[in-house]
Amino acid sequence: MNAEVIAVGSELLLGQITNSNARFLSEKMTGLGINVYYHTTVGDNRERLTEAIRVASGRADLVIMTGGLGPTKDDLTKETLAEYLDKELVIHGQTLDVITRFFEKRRQPMTANNKKQAQVIKGSHVFKNNHGLACGMVTDTTPSFLLLPGPPKEMYPMVEEEVIPYLAGKGGSGVEITSRVLRFFGIGESALADMFDDLIENQENPTIAPLASGGEVTLRLTAKGASLSNKKALDELESTILSSVNDFFYGYGNDPLSKVAAEKLKSSNMTIASAESLTGGLFGEWMTEHSGASSFYNGGVICYDAKVKQNVLNVKEETVRNYGTVSAECAEELAVNVKAVLGSDIGISFTGVAGPYSLENKEPGIVFLGISTPSGTKSYPLNLAGSRAQIRERAAMYGCFYLLRELN
Amino acid sequence: MNAEVIAVGSELLLGQITNSNARFLSEKMTGLGINVYYHTTVGDNRERLTEAIRVASGRADLVIMTGGLGPTKDDLTKETLAEYLDKELVIHGQTLDVITRFFEKRRQPMTANNKKQAQVIKGSHVFKNNHGLACGMVTDTTPSFLLLPGPPKEMYPMVEEEVIPYLAGKGGSGVEITSRVLRFFGIGESALADMFDDLIENQENPTIAPLASGGEVTLRLTAKGASLSNKKALDELESTILSSVNDFFYGYGNDPLSKVAAEKLKSSNMTIASAESLTGGLFGEWMTEHSGASSFYNGGVICYDAKVKQNVLNVKEETVRNYGTVSAECAEELAVNVKAVLGSDIGISFTGVAGPYSLENKEPGIVFLGISTPSGTKSYPLNLAGSRAQIRERAAMYGCFYLLRELN
Repeated sequence: MNAEVIAVGSELLLGQITNSNARFLSEKMTGLGINVYYHTTVGDNRERLTEAIRVASGRADLVIMTGGLGPTKDDLTKETLAEYLDKELVIHGQTLDVITRFFEKRRQPMTANNKKQAQVIKGSHVFKNNHGLACGMVTDTTPSFLLLPGPPKEMYPMVEEEVIPYLAGKGGSGVEITSRVLRFFGIGESALADMFDDLIENQENPTIAPLASGGEVTLRLTAKGASLSNKKALDELESTILSSVNDFFYGYGNDPLSKVAAEKLKSSNMTIASAESLTGGLFGEWMTEHSGASSFYNGGVICYDAKVKQNVLNVKEETVRNYGTVSAECAEELAVNVKAVLGSDIGISFTGVAGPYSLENKEPGIVFLGISTPSGTKSYPLNLAGSRAQIRERAAMYGCFYLLRELN
Repeated sequence: MNAEVIAVGSELLLGQITNSNARFLSEKMTGLGINVYYHTTVGDNRERLTEAIRVASGRADLVIMTGGLGPTKDDLTKETLAEYLDKELVIHGQTLDVITRFFEKRRQPMTANNKKQAQVIKGSHVFKNNHGLACGMVTDTTPSFLLLPGPPKEMYPMVEEEVIPYLAGKGGSGVEITSRVLRFFGIGESALADMFDDLIENQENPTIAPLASGGEVTLRLTAKGASLSNKKALDELESTILSSVNDFFYGYGNDPLSKVAAEKLKSSNMTIASAESLTGGLFGEWMTEHSGASSFYNGGVICYDAKVKQNVLNVKEETVRNYGTVSAECAEELAVNVKAVLGSDIGISFTGVAGPYSLENKEPGIVFLGISTPSGTKSYPLNLAGSRAQIRERAAMYGCFYLLRELN
């Protein structure tokens, strides 16, 4: 079975709000083994709405429409669909009762507009709205049309509590779709895709989809079938993949590198302090993003100015004179000293050139990381590409990545 | 002119990410006077992508496609569209140079996949990508197809810097649309909108559109007409508005509060140092976001742990004992001492409860800011609402806002 989601509302087309309903519905349908092949968004306009219904009718088994079920003149979904299907609109008694009681309770007059909300397309199965007045429905036509209210506060619970059980009961394909996301850092999307060219080219089930986002690359593995055989297929594919790129793999799911590093630190029972020059506080900001950070992050020194490196973090004058502040030597001293000054188990440091101009005759992108743990101190030279913002972000990400390696 | 936005990517149809690109593009097109009538989302599938292109071709003057320009096999947008249009794909020399240099700089081999990213549809006008490898383009066909990369970090700046000037230059109606954005902080969107209820209700030309984003509120004033009369109309409307909400106004255009504060510091010829507890480095990160920060930002201490406040920033033990670390007294000491320890003209401090749990019997959202300048030291109590992330961000924003007032 394949589905199309049509979101109705001019505010979406004006860019005033994001279409988060389409994401929610896609996720839920995928979980039911229903393939969503298209999303469409259309405004509160009868002609264009009819056109969207016509196009979707030609290519989907299930058309899910959200929005346009409200009481006002520009809510047209039900009326337009009924006309397209050549079906009558009839009053749904239970829904009318709910609406009538709602206005009685508030001692407000009920208008003809409000009564309109109790209308359903003849022959539909009706879904109750526990958080608003507009009921949902699914038509008895081919393709079938599922009509849902637009406000997420009404639509999400209706889908969870009523629509999913209804669709699951209808059986459908019996096929489940299972996804697993593997996260990588330090390797580009194309390099990663190249390594699995054969697998991607010839894939049927399971499939591999690479995606680059925020300096990380993920591979999404997706299997279709019975739940147990899906798990087995994904396990096998994962082993194949990790046997060649294990060095760049760092985790599963949706957690970015910074969160994985923070979790690892927390579970290591060690504390860390940071000395940040080019990153200006970004690493500290990441470490303190989630609550409970005080158990592993003591704090840090943002040593942006060279004098702060020397006066607050005691970097030797001769280090600066002989090697400069952008050097492995300075990075190591910063890591060792920030650990001592803040009294932590681990010290991490970031010094380098964020750009766009060179510094100490070093090009933008030249960065040195220092990590000092109870078992010793190391430095890592990096040569990063990109804008100032990307160089800063990637430097902080490499810090998280090498820290994870140190802690493993 | 009317447009359709096609977002390409299976991850959208699986519900893994939200289609924020469609919102962004709709907002920008609306600003240019281009009506967006449909959004479509389609997966990385040649057949269904062709179908989406076919449908859009029949109903839009401009088809904007985002995503599917990457280097991997499932990036199909260019190839599918070229085939549909019966156009050749040709190598774009400048883009190939950029890609070649990118890999040379990283000392990584360039693959055939990467070279694919330098291909453009013959006859297209090409848009440079300053934040990634895939170039954008607009075809010379009817309807015209505008191809943009999918990652927002690449697409947003390409649209702002290259596509909008290009489309605006194409002119069209002869009527000019002039926009001016006024930026406010410390007042909510609905409170601001309420104040200008009459103006908004009866507006024809110029118009006022309030928008809340990232803790700030902007009012976009838009006039349609000849260029000179637009300027006059916007000047008048601006005076009317600022006569009642001048206290919350801080700037024009697209620069957020943090950038305006950094610019103001730079032009003041004073230096600043920061002591950050709950914000964890966010203020420092903002100050160092743009190059040239070393002329006004010395650095800071991330004093997340109470011991760092005492040992590194010399907060008196009795202050902590009598008032706690979340107090006006502690904020003022931190501001004074960070200035002394780092040798700057101004010290700013942030201490408070980011949540979700209480601290020292104070609720999440209770924050104290300290600002110490050559003319004295002040503290500002804040009571912020929202999530942990919002409380941290708003605390840092209030720091920028009060700093701006101090410097005015």
